[in-house]
Amino acid sequence: MTTDQASGPLSGLRILEIGHFVAAPFCTRLLADLGADVIKIEPHGGDPVRKWGASVDDNSLWWSVHGRNKRSVRLNLKAPGATDIVLDILRNCDAVVENFRPGQLARMGLSNETMRRDNPGLIVTHVSGFGQDGPYRDRAAFGVIGEAIGGLRYLSDHAPGTSDLPPVRAGISIGDSLAGLYAAFGLVTALWQRDQANGDGKGRTIDVALTESVLSMMEGTLPEYGMLGNVRQPTGSRIPTAAPSSAYPTKDGKWVLIAGNSEPIFKRLCELIGSPELPDDVRFASNPTRVANVDELDAIIANWTSQQESTSLLSLLEQSDIPSSGIYSATEIANDPQYRQRNMVREVEDARFAKPVLHPGIVPHFVEDPGNVRWCGPAIGQHTTEVLTEVGYDADTIATLVANGVI
Amino acid sequence: MTTDQASGPLSGLRILEIGHFVAAPFCTRLLADLGADVIKIEPHGGDPVRKWGASVDDNSLWWSVHGRNKRSVRLNLKAPGATDIVLDILRNCDAVVENFRPGQLARMGLSNETMRRDNPGLIVTHVSGFGQDGPYRDRAAFGVIGEAIGGLRYLSDHAPGTSDLPPVRAGISIGDSLAGLYAAFGLVTALWQRDQANGDGKGRTIDVALTESVLSMMEGTLPEYGMLGNVRQPTGSRIPTAAPSSAYPTKDGKWVLIAGNSEPIFKRLCELIGSPELPDDVRFASNPTRVANVDELDAIIANWTSQQESTSLLSLLEQSDIPSSGIYSATEIANDPQYRQRNMVREVEDARFAKPVLHPGIVPHFVEDPGNVRWCGPAIGQHTTEVLTEVGYDADTIATLVANGVI
Repeated sequence: MTTDQASGPLSGLRILEIGHFVAAPFCTRLLADLGADVIKIEPHGGDPVRKWGASVDDNSLWWSVHGRNKRSVRLNLKAPGATDIVLDILRNCDAVVENFRPGQLARMGLSNETMRRDNPGLIVTHVSGFGQDGPYRDRAAFGVIGEAIGGLRYLSDHAPGTSDLPPVRAGISIGDSLAGLYAAFGLVTALWQRDQANGDGKGRTIDVALTESVLSMMEGTLPEYGMLGNVRQPTGSRIPTAAPSSAYPTKDGKWVLIAGNSEPIFKRLCELIGSPELPDDVRFASNPTRVANVDELDAIIANWTSQQESTSLLSLLEQSDIPSSGIYSATEIANDPQYRQRNMVREVEDARFAKPVLHPGIVPHFVEDPGNVRWCGPAIGQHTTEVLTEVGYDADTIATLVANGVI
Repeated sequence: MTTDQASGPLSGLRILEIGHFVAAPFCTRLLADLGADVIKIEPHGGDPVRKWGASVDDNSLWWSVHGRNKRSVRLNLKAPGATDIVLDILRNCDAVVENFRPGQLARMGLSNETMRRDNPGLIVTHVSGFGQDGPYRDRAAFGVIGEAIGGLRYLSDHAPGTSDLPPVRAGISIGDSLAGLYAAFGLVTALWQRDQANGDGKGRTIDVALTESVLSMMEGTLPEYGMLGNVRQPTGSRIPTAAPSSAYPTKDGKWVLIAGNSEPIFKRLCELIGSPELPDDVRFASNPTRVANVDELDAIIANWTSQQESTSLLSLLEQSDIPSSGIYSATEIANDPQYRQRNMVREVEDARFAKPVLHPGIVPHFVEDPGNVRWCGPAIGQHTTEVLTEVGYDADTIATLVANGVI
């Protein structure tokens, strides 16, 4: 480590990232946040995310977070000898995470077998659009494709007939980040299996697809279709399986979310809106009947909410212990006292910027050993010399590699 | 195990779930899918998800998936002596996952300290709306609240001014399932830390909040606001940081997603639509300029797509290796050849139903040892006697507990 000592439950772990864009780098951000030493291989032009979103002097703000706690090694993977450098680094790694198209890494000379030749315990984590085999394996995919094929995009829409506009994107590259999170879960699972007292020390291969990561979260969508032919439909602001739960309008033109979909909460909500008889009404007496009569129920609730200012409405709901909230934009997130107290919104020094950068905290929160933001997204190749020196390269060799444009 | 032998990388692991609804049970589904022995504590009325969504003879289809590979122990946690039963089961567990309101488990007599008294290696994973401390810790929260406070809901909308409708829900309880996935990642991380060769054998405490699980995925939202005051806005079907990527209309009234947001892909797309000069146009020459001129760019692409039938359009895009897809509903998911070949859509026998249930597969995919669906969501208390016998209860004791309504 060049800077602060690693802490967190994954300290002592070393991971090589051969990734770009969102999925693999998000996986390694999670691992690095918990203390792993993540070494990122980057081409001379850098990861494209360095240019995504708002920037100051060509430094993207997102990169400050996306690359944090990682070390960057500049390496042209297509240059002669580049794969030997990767293999030299891999010898001391526990795992590798990559998100090229399936087979591309092997074509570059970095098949699973080659990567494990001197390191049979290496855990190999592949992240791709559709997976490492099957008829679609060679298809190009980005997060939005994963969302669409996984079934999420179809549901991120208003109810059929409500709007002529297309279903909306979740608003973030959730297909990518979900795959990254599944990859991190899988990688650590393989580590446990390998390193436990009666483990065999062998590295496993994990094959994470964006599409499948999304599909895995689709609740009853698939079994309900298979058994009954029901094609789950979007429900806009509502939950299809529980009521009441929706966004309701306020007098000041905002939306307030109310989730009254458990029996005791629904009872309290009915008392609050001055209709304590509703839970005994046959239309609203149980969750299935409330779902069946949701238009009527939501109209009753909306009639009440639209007479209130959002601030006082939220206060009333909170006093009655009814799950509810405004819809947070960046402004409310940045100023939320709960996030601040739990260090989930924190100010981090980043030398490229004149003032601290606002970072999200480290999730999941380990109470005894939460990890830390040790540094922000590094410059391209900031740690090339450091890492190559660690694996035994001398100054002359490194200078030659630089002169030849390899690193 | 009463049925098939566990396989998968987490076989040998035993987890107690004291959970309900989505978040904690989703966490344990992921662990059980990979081979862990998950014991779920259920009240006599069962987990409410057993009644959510479409059912056949009161058996919800979702439950067949949500409860799969788990053992169910019926236990009234409020009955005298119930906590002793929990402690007896916990003695042989590696971890516990719970999603009561913060502090509620401790008030029932199951504080972290009590749970670890005879099992100092116990990993305790709390899942809650806002976390175990801080000013909001006692607030009620469901998945939709987590989405809203985490910032996702604000972005799941059309661009400001486009629509009078509220931002849509992601379409699933993604705040819950994200928290469950983070909890699974954290739990296995703590296991690795505990069980590795130089581990200390101690159990850690993991504190996962729905809100924070969502916030963790919000890309540049927070740093861009903090540095520049930019409040990230919804962009409907587009990506705010990359272009072109959107849903485009077809001649037959459908939507097709095209993600042309890398330089080589954009070039191929321009050739395909018969405008090979576009990448040299100053408005579209780089990702930042394409984002700045996205209305013009999308109009050019939409003009082309709206002259094509969706099937032939998708075929053209695939031939040019441009990331693209239709928007899958349950129908397309169930019939997708890639999912079928990778066993990500599979038919599973469930004795409650006259024909097999369509289940999503196991994610992440472990190539050498993928795990299996050993059985579907159990009946309430199906394994009560089995589990209590394993921890040393004799038949008379069990009969007395049944007679007293404890189990």
